[in-house]
Amino acid sequence: MLNKFRLLTPGPTPLPERVRLVLARDMIHHRKGEFKEIMAQVQVSLKTLFGTTSTVLPLSCSGTGAMTAAVYNLFAPGQKVLVIEGGKFGQRWREIALSHGLEVESIVVPWGKAVAPQAVEAALKADPSIAGVLIQLSETSTGVLHPVEEVARITRNSETLLLVDGISAVGLSPCPMDAWGVDCLLTGSQKGLMLPPGLALLALSERAWACAEKQTPGCFYFNLIKEREYVHKGQTLFTSPVGLILGLKESLDMLLENGLRALYAKQWALTMLTRASLTAMGLELFAKKDFAWGITSVMLPDGVDGVEVLRMAQEKHGVSMAGGQDHFKGRMARVGHMGWVDWADVVAGIYALNDCLCSVGGYCGSRDYIEQGLAAYRAALAGEPGEPLPLVYNS
Amino acid sequence: MLNKFRLLTPGPTPLPERVRLVLARDMIHHRKGEFKEIMAQVQVSLKTLFGTTSTVLPLSCSGTGAMTAAVYNLFAPGQKVLVIEGGKFGQRWREIALSHGLEVESIVVPWGKAVAPQAVEAALKADPSIAGVLIQLSETSTGVLHPVEEVARITRNSETLLLVDGISAVGLSPCPMDAWGVDCLLTGSQKGLMLPPGLALLALSERAWACAEKQTPGCFYFNLIKEREYVHKGQTLFTSPVGLILGLKESLDMLLENGLRALYAKQWALTMLTRASLTAMGLELFAKKDFAWGITSVMLPDGVDGVEVLRMAQEKHGVSMAGGQDHFKGRMARVGHMGWVDWADVVAGIYALNDCLCSVGGYCGSRDYIEQGLAAYRAALAGEPGEPLPLVYNS
Repeated sequence: MLNKFRLLTPGPTPLPERVRLVLARDMIHHRKGEFKEIMAQVQVSLKTLFGTTSTVLPLSCSGTGAMTAAVYNLFAPGQKVLVIEGGKFGQRWREIALSHGLEVESIVVPWGKAVAPQAVEAALKADPSIAGVLIQLSETSTGVLHPVEEVARITRNSETLLLVDGISAVGLSPCPMDAWGVDCLLTGSQKGLMLPPGLALLALSERAWACAEKQTPGCFYFNLIKEREYVHKGQTLFTSPVGLILGLKESLDMLLENGLRALYAKQWALTMLTRASLTAMGLELFAKKDFAWGITSVMLPDGVDGVEVLRMAQEKHGVSMAGGQDHFKGRMARVGHMGWVDWADVVAGIYALNDCLCSVGGYCGSRDYIEQGLAAYRAALAGEPGEPLPLVYNS
Repeated sequence: MLNKFRLLTPGPTPLPERVRLVLARDMIHHRKGEFKEIMAQVQVSLKTLFGTTSTVLPLSCSGTGAMTAAVYNLFAPGQKVLVIEGGKFGQRWREIALSHGLEVESIVVPWGKAVAPQAVEAALKADPSIAGVLIQLSETSTGVLHPVEEVARITRNSETLLLVDGISAVGLSPCPMDAWGVDCLLTGSQKGLMLPPGLALLALSERAWACAEKQTPGCFYFNLIKEREYVHKGQTLFTSPVGLILGLKESLDMLLENGLRALYAKQWALTMLTRASLTAMGLELFAKKDFAWGITSVMLPDGVDGVEVLRMAQEKHGVSMAGGQDHFKGRMARVGHMGWVDWADVVAGIYALNDCLCSVGGYCGSRDYIEQGLAAYRAALAGEPGEPLPLVYNS
């Protein structure tokens, strides 16, 4: 009763009441009229969100399912792909590609850094047989934002397809796929889209569709060509995750209510809030230059047991944040500011983190770290100089 | 306002309010304590429902995803399987097996009939290299119940694995997998389990696990060995469909409240109600001898436009039923009595069907077709002679 529970992880995220009430609706049939109408409405909104005129496919699986679907439908075993590996999800691209019998070349980027577009350019120049570049927009394990727009400038003038895992980015920071020249953009329902997990969304460019048309899909369950046929009839190939599709209609209505600019401006301001506050606490931001807009990763002071700090934050303050993964386990906090989260939730998370750091190590940030965060938030919303909202929109 | 909407299709099904309220809950994290506890509780109930001591895996996909997972994890390309093809979902087994490079032999059974166990025995005797038999317990497209217990008596004494698609059967009619000797039992969330679609459940026998351990999974997204490791930690390999798992806890609590016998007795009685009523209407039941306990398929009179009849039933009476598939489109009605449906809902469906048949063709059943159905329902519940509840239980 003392604290509300606040979920500040990089997915799943808190859900709006409007969406939760829709999720409580009784079932309708996935091959009949009302559902088809909702599928058509969702399609319009998804195209806006993805910045594309292509069909956006809803798939009944997690984000990893959509990554698998992309690789298994766009490439044939034996083809070569270039993977940008700067974290756990870059590694996942590699594992998926290898499982499909692809030859994999990797650009290994230190965790916390973004790939240099020049490195991609050089790799493609050195080996023009590379059929695809596999990258994250936001690398959830590090909070890094990779320069997808710049990489797309390189790939779109070549034969190489650019596949973008936008799982922790779509609905949080811009990725207008047609304008940038992205060939595959995919996401999951449990991040920017303010839904429970279990639904993935995937769109292909025209030239990616042409590739898919030439392939036999590597897995029966993921058949993008057939899925597209069904989506054009307002259905999905196999049984639709009906509840999540109904919820998606509601969440997209909310996300697009004030336009994409307002959506991204909010995320940018929350990011500024988080970064300014954590910096004022004297902590070291992990993604220094190229950072995601839905998650902020921060190094914890040496000697502090990060697992314990995050456990305390939940127990004492009701705030659930994520820790570091793999070799950063116990040394990092990842503060999610995605989904149905506003500035006050983020302040609660930052306060909890500071308080627990003080408890375990006698470590305390500067007295006004919250006010510094809020000042940055206000400045970002007002468009004041400093780190203005990058003006990349598709509408 | 005149009619409530009643969903009497063979999935999705109506959901209980208790489940719907859980589905409206805010998110929790899928790698943390509360979720792990729920996963552990769900595991206990699932083992009871599946009649097994093996782990039951929750997968983030539709039922077809689970069918794919089974085939891609248990067999290597080049192996041979025997498919029982007596409807649309038997065909799906064949398509999945072919997509994985398996050699497929089929026993084609006329739609509406169950396979003869002797035919399976003869096929396995003729070719001992057959590595698996792929069958439906309930073939959703025809309403037929295949004799899985008898087929398992044959396979369990051989090297051949028996894979059972229980998508429209689990939670509706018994399939105690350990007692019968079933090697793989799978289902989807949107039928007997009273949940929205988007979650599949799959269990393997010990010898099936031994096969899976020897295989490289044919699709990255479906890795049963790794899923099992995660389930033992109260998690899933990739992001869990959190909302559906929370809902599953609630629906399993309801389903098992009075034991499996009560659960199946209800389904048997609903089936008796439906069959007696439709027969009294003068209609021809499609699955004559071996029928499912969650869906009843019935031929419509010659010359009647079945599509129009079902459209009217929805428009005039608020009842949504399914029609025939493929070559039975327009000639058949499939009345679902699964999920959160009771006798009065079924009566509503039967009344709607009779009324609409009268409207389009001047065709009317006997005056007391509803009372005949209800009499059969009462007799079944009371265990009166006639067609008593088959006593096959695992508890």
